[in-house]
Amino acid sequence: MQFIGITHHGGPWAAVLAGSRVLPLATVTEFWADAEGWKDKAASLVSATDGADDAGAWLERGSVTEVPLVPAAARVICVGLNYKAHVAEGSFKDQELPPYPTLFARWTASLSVGNAPVPVPAGEAGLDWEGEVAAYIGRRVESADQATAADAVFGYSTFNDITSRRAQKLTSQWTLGKNGDFSGPLGPLVSRDEVGDLRDGLQVRTRVNGFEAQNGNTRDMIFSVPAIIALISETFTLHPGDVIATGTPDGVGYARTPQWLLQPGDTVEVEVEKLGTLTTPVGDISLRSRA
Amino acid sequence: MQFIGITHHGGPWAAVLAGSRVLPLATVTEFWADAEGWKDKAASLVSATDGADDAGAWLERGSVTEVPLVPAAARVICVGLNYKAHVAEGSFKDQELPPYPTLFARWTASLSVGNAPVPVPAGEAGLDWEGEVAAYIGRRVESADQATAADAVFGYSTFNDITSRRAQKLTSQWTLGKNGDFSGPLGPLVSRDEVGDLRDGLQVRTRVNGFEAQNGNTRDMIFSVPAIIALISETFTLHPGDVIATGTPDGVGYARTPQWLLQPGDTVEVEVEKLGTLTTPVGDISLRSRA
Repeated sequence: MQFIGITHHGGPWAAVLAGSRVLPLATVTEFWADAEGWKDKAASLVSATDGADDAGAWLERGSVTEVPLVPAAARVICVGLNYKAHVAEGSFKDQELPPYPTLFARWTASLSVGNAPVPVPAGEAGLDWEGEVAAYIGRRVESADQATAADAVFGYSTFNDITSRRAQKLTSQWTLGKNGDFSGPLGPLVSRDEVGDLRDGLQVRTRVNGFEAQNGNTRDMIFSVPAIIALISETFTLHPGDVIATGTPDGVGYARTPQWLLQPGDTVEVEVEKLGTLTTPVGDISLRSRA
Repeated sequence: MQFIGITHHGGPWAAVLAGSRVLPLATVTEFWADAEGWKDKAASLVSATDGADDAGAWLERGSVTEVPLVPAAARVICVGLNYKAHVAEGSFKDQELPPYPTLFARWTASLSVGNAPVPVPAGEAGLDWEGEVAAYIGRRVESADQATAADAVFGYSTFNDITSRRAQKLTSQWTLGKNGDFSGPLGPLVSRDEVGDLRDGLQVRTRVNGFEAQNGNTRDMIFSVPAIIALISETFTLHPGDVIATGTPDGVGYARTPQWLLQPGDTVEVEVEKLGTLTTPVGDISLRSRA
């Protein structure tokens, strides 16, 4: 099953996505209170209306406003340096591989959806891409082992951890440059049963204006999603709707010679096997007036 | 004026605090949509009922459940290394003073209130204290200069940035150890007109079981609140209810010889001039079942 967030009845709702149509299910809060239950209900609703003339409450995807399928209070926990080839290309290449996942934070206020333009903030020479896979927590996780952590994953989506590199590298902590307005687009959530284990390998490709900039595979992740969740859950309790952004493979723009960064007018796409393609146009600073 | 968050009609509300009584004003979302307006209304309500026998909708503070006066989607932007004496005692003492504020993230899910116990996570030798002042954003801030940023501050509160040091120092990024369950207690919000400019100096004291562990003054902050807000606003847009945690003075526990960390049964207090005293009992890991 695939799910997206939409604006419905004036607020954020979860909807099941089937082809070009969406069916609103519940508010985002209600959805995450029982994600597995809503998945089962969605399956019944989709099969009941399959091929039926009476489309009922289904809407054309093109007619709705999409929003991130994430509760306002969710934590978006991003993993840096999770592919060896990416570590080797970047600022940390002369250091030992970190023995633990390098976790940094996005606030939900930085999230966005496919086809929503992202502004380049003042003072940045451009924006950098980081195509990756996001994992969504489906149930409460406290001090879990890896098997329990694996079962807590409800699904996955494409994600682009679009980065303001200048701001990221002002100090030792990356927070500022990882939270630009509209800089964290998420694609539709695909339930775990349709995706399987990331260790089995999903190809992750990023294209800029059609040119392939990244081509990695999730089987090369240093820390697995269950290992990351288990570690986090030792210190704080994960809740349904929390997101783990699993890190980007090599091929980012700042590490290239010459540097290659996104400019207004560019388009960046993140394509992940089984998860689809996430497209983000880059715009200018005037887009910030919408944030 | 002083404000707190309370549970009211089943959700988070803002209430004005007057002595031992509170008057619910609006939901937290409604409050932050027009914080200055609610402050004016609260002033009228307080003076109208001052001394009146008809206490109306006023509640005893002791009878309500307090919650952080922060929207779920708020960003809690913490500043590390913002007092020279604290930099000199810690892990960064052999490095140059950072030329920009070192910003790290808390999610609202880690926030708490006064008198709420905080658990020590598994694997930690204890918890560390970081008494400080939190500043609350009152209006939207995009690419502001320092004067505009200063005007955007609605008020201040006490804050204890209680830290899981082991988790904080697992990698280069501090996020994990800064987001433990119930580890970010906030005191009542005091409006800016009653506090003035932090550069004029508020004494910040932290006591552990009555012994003074920290005694600093906000006039010694390296980066002022307006400078921090202006810098952030270059990269992302601040919204009403966002919080800037302004950093802790020297005297934290991990930097001492021998190390001194909070254990279950300890009580830590943060007292700030004009903002009051924030008390946090330390409990054991079983408290995590409430997160």
